[in-house]
Amino acid sequence: MNYYGEYVTRLIEQFGKLPGIGGRSAQRLAFYVLNMPKENADALARSIVEARERVKYCSHCCNLTDTDPCPICSSAKRNKNQIMVVESPRDMAAYEKTNDFHGVYHVLHGLINPMEGVGPEDIRIRELLDRINDSTEEVILATSSTVEGDTTAMYIARNIALRNDGVKTSRIAKGVPVGGELEYVDQVTLAQAFKSRFDMNSGKDSEDEDN
Amino acid sequence: MNYYGEYVTRLIEQFGKLPGIGGRSAQRLAFYVLNMPKENADALARSIVEARERVKYCSHCCNLTDTDPCPICSSAKRNKNQIMVVESPRDMAAYEKTNDFHGVYHVLHGLINPMEGVGPEDIRIRELLDRINDSTEEVILATSSTVEGDTTAMYIARNIALRNDGVKTSRIAKGVPVGGELEYVDQVTLAQAFKSRFDMNSGKDSEDEDN
Repeated sequence: MNYYGEYVTRLIEQFGKLPGIGGRSAQRLAFYVLNMPKENADALARSIVEARERVKYCSHCCNLTDTDPCPICSSAKRNKNQIMVVESPRDMAAYEKTNDFHGVYHVLHGLINPMEGVGPEDIRIRELLDRINDSTEEVILATSSTVEGDTTAMYIARNIALRNDGVKTSRIAKGVPVGGELEYVDQVTLAQAFKSRFDMNSGKDSEDEDN
Repeated sequence: MNYYGEYVTRLIEQFGKLPGIGGRSAQRLAFYVLNMPKENADALARSIVEARERVKYCSHCCNLTDTDPCPICSSAKRNKNQIMVVESPRDMAAYEKTNDFHGVYHVLHGLINPMEGVGPEDIRIRELLDRINDSTEEVILATSSTVEGDTTAMYIARNIALRNDGVKTSRIAKGVPVGGELEYVDQVTLAQAFKSRFDMNSGKDSEDEDN
């Protein structure tokens, strides 16, 4: 039954469609918005419309951005020949916080996951392979250390080996807790994992050649 | 640092201002909105603006409504002389679901809470007292059974006794679990609490006159 009238009910429904927002949370959010100063409610609505309209994918790295190329891809300080492959913009932000990586990114927007029906063609792997050429020094596969992350990294490494044999393909070390989602890992662990990355096509450690 | 660009950052900030939405939830919501079909994002934004613009307080019961008077106050089936006083529109909806009450409501939009600096003049008590006249049969105080709910009920009952001595003022029974928030109580308990309400100014049970 409709106890609140059309507009309140519609607002509750809209909030209820968002991920992680159940019925009671949607009600709480709706009543909070109704008690907000009008300009704050307008600012929230405007930021949704503007972000959805203005934000595009960077034509280089596929990250979400409002300028193309994105600030990282257009920065003169970044090494364009070192590409770190991540699952999502949040993982990119997590690595940026370490201040330890000075190359550029490639955002896949997902991982290969046959159980969920996500194949290699559903994420931005083709765009990555198209970016890689003879001047590329290294591709660092920084997907989560889950089954899906490892599968995706393996798939990409094999395709790079087939197409651009000279390009070094590394994987961040298993310093990242096994089974953990990358975005929740602390910055010191992320930096350590980056330092002890290993070459996926030789099995050798990139820092310690004695192994 | 701004890893996502202006519009995404602003959207994350806006979601982060909502109650119960932390930093990571705000990020998750923002990226969800960015991946929504454009018309869904527009619908969400529009429902926020419309609800904030169109929804007013009912001039009778102070409930949120898009028609004045609200559907309950304008219904011929409701007894206008039996007024149930609740803290919030959500508590009103909780009582409506019992289908056991056929009077009208008065929504206080808060409870007296001196610790938080909320006094009787900060909630809709004056509007309630102005509504009550000689034709009013009963005022049922259905605030939560917390310290604030009991304090508010007591304050209102005393003021009614001072201004309109003939009006019966009842309190929902302590069938509502002590310390519990009214909106989380099951419907059978709410209905039971309504049936065994007692007169606040005589201490007698309204149903069982033998006590």
